[in-house]
Amino acid sequence: MGPGDNASKIDLDRAYELGQYIAQEGWVLLTGGRKAGVMDAASQGAKAAGGLTIGILPRDNTSKISEGVDIAIVTDMGNARNNINVLSSDVVIACGMGIGTASEIALALKNGKQVVLLTDNQDSQKFFTSLSPQQVFLTISPEVAINFVKASLTKIL
Amino acid sequence: MGPGDNASKIDLDRAYELGQYIAQEGWVLLTGGRKAGVMDAASQGAKAAGGLTIGILPRDNTSKISEGVDIAIVTDMGNARNNINVLSSDVVIACGMGIGTASEIALALKNGKQVVLLTDNQDSQKFFTSLSPQQVFLTISPEVAINFVKASLTKIL
Amino acid sequence: MGPGDNASKIDLDRAYELGQYIAQEGWVLLTGGRKAGVMDAASQGAKAAGGLTIGILPRDNTSKISEGVDIAIVTDMGNARNNINVLSSDVVIACGMGIGTASEIALALKNGKQVVLLTDNQDSQKFFTSLSPQQVFLTISPEVAINFVKASLTKIL
Amino acid sequence: MGPGDNASKIDLDRAYELGQYIAQEGWVLLTGGRKAGVMDAASQGAKAAGGLTIGILPRDNTSKISEGVDIAIVTDMGNARNNINVLSSDVVIACGMGIGTASEIALALKNGKQVVLLTDNQDSQKFFTSLSPQQVFLTISPEVAINFVKASLTKIL
Repeated sequence: MGPGDNASKIDLDRAYELGQYIAQEGWVLLTGGRKAGVMDAASQGAKAAGGLTIGILPRDNTSKISEGVDIAIVTDMGNARNNINVLSSDVVIACGMGIGTASEIALALKNGKQVVLLTDNQDSQKFFTSLSPQQVFLTISPEVAINFVKASLTKIL
Repeated sequence: MGPGDNASKIDLDRAYELGQYIAQEGWVLLTGGRKAGVMDAASQGAKAAGGLTIGILPRDNTSKISEGVDIAIVTDMGNARNNINVLSSDVVIACGMGIGTASEIALALKNGKQVVLLTDNQDSQKFFTSLSPQQVFLTISPEVAINFVKASLTKIL
Repeated sequence: MGPGDNASKIDLDRAYELGQYIAQEGWVLLTGGRKAGVMDAASQGAKAAGGLTIGILPRDNTSKISEGVDIAIVTDMGNARNNINVLSSDVVIACGMGIGTASEIALALKNGKQVVLLTDNQDSQKFFTSLSPQQVFLTISPEVAINFVKASLTKIL
Repeated sequence: MGPGDNASKIDLDRAYELGQYIAQEGWVLLTGGRKAGVMDAASQGAKAAGGLTIGILPRDNTSKISEGVDIAIVTDMGNARNNINVLSSDVVIACGMGIGTASEIALALKNGKQVVLLTDNQDSQKFFTSLSPQQVFLTISPEVAINFVKASLTKIL
């Protein structure tokens, strides 16, 4: 999960790298599916590494699907689809920060999911850690994020 | 909006007071509708002052509806109903802070709504103000919150 | 519930009459809220008789709300909001027939609600009665429909 | 799409066969994902033929997922998830008939999708054909259904 329309260059690079790692691990990548920002970069990275990608789309507008998405789930629910994104994920990685990303992090915590904050945004690190310290893991390295997810999956699955 | 199961005494007092003010202004109160925490206190306050109250419920379980709710909208959508709560509100007041409340604030900002943070939680004040300074108003006084809403409604309606 | 954009003159007349009866009984009218067809006619009828009306809207587009709606719930969920319409109703009256109405009737039956079919459409009468005979009541009279609802509410409430 | 808890033996056999054909065509199978009835049989058939299967689940209860589902999308939206099922499908095949299936057919028609009714239920054939003749194709043969879908996809994709 991460910013769609206001992603920074570093967010996009990290998202692409995350997508590659996720595919290399043999995991399925699930994003918000739009052709924008972190969801697009992560999907493209996963496809470049031969992975399988799911996109949970807010609307029925096929022209705006990321080309990196294999399977498009069309919700037509706008931002309420963020709850489906996190419920359908074993672990949530938030790459970058913004309003929509904040809603996904909060919904992930509410639904009992582990969340990796891959961001330099210190206000968000402090806030979400204070809300639920055991569920939040902080890093700025995609590789460290993936290793944390791997360890978490061992406990869940 | 505000904590359901982990509301503090001061959150509940402020929520009750907010409900009273909202009813006295002749506005309709919309909450998450459950018989718990801030949503229950605000609904009870509004009813005590003769107001009309709506509850947007996560599930179809009538025994858990706040007795202060006049009209129950049953979504059966769990936390995804938070998006309906904020979309259906002219202005959102967050009274207290928690994971669910954070998701509602983020969704309200995402949907372009004005949000009043009525909380002593400084991490949340700093974080949400940094995300969208023009949309966030900070106060710890129910009366000041209501006056801000009144001024906002003049611009919206 | 009933056709939005393809309602017949007789559907609209019956819907207006239903709205009036519902208001006269002191019940709250819940519709799909748009300024179109049966939902608009029923809301206008209820307002003319001094009732309270709720509209569960598919999108956030205030210009298309029926003028007969007092309280607009904005779902931004398109046709998925039909499930909320029926879950939030004590009894469902389908006035007229069409694709959207058929989905609401089926969802109402699925959620265990009583459904009144107020329609001359014999194919729909036969089909829905065969699916769940105990839940379906047939009539072409708004007055008979209201009397059936009154009797049903006695059992539910 | 088809009955979950009240599927007949013939519905299950046809669903299994449909799943096999869908996998053999190289298409992705999308169902409601539960370990019950037509959705389970179709998913098992597709897996037996080496296909990829998606399940759009109503709740977050992993024990009830069909073992034939590869990718589980958890909506926690109950029957409102039926709208996502049909929006995410290129063509909808209804195998058997029941209340939930009727809601999916109606929602599919409402969203402009082609629907194949693979059922012996004549009331449903007559009713849905009358609602939208161009969108409804009738057959009782899985093979004929698949050939119709193949022809439809040529026009859509």
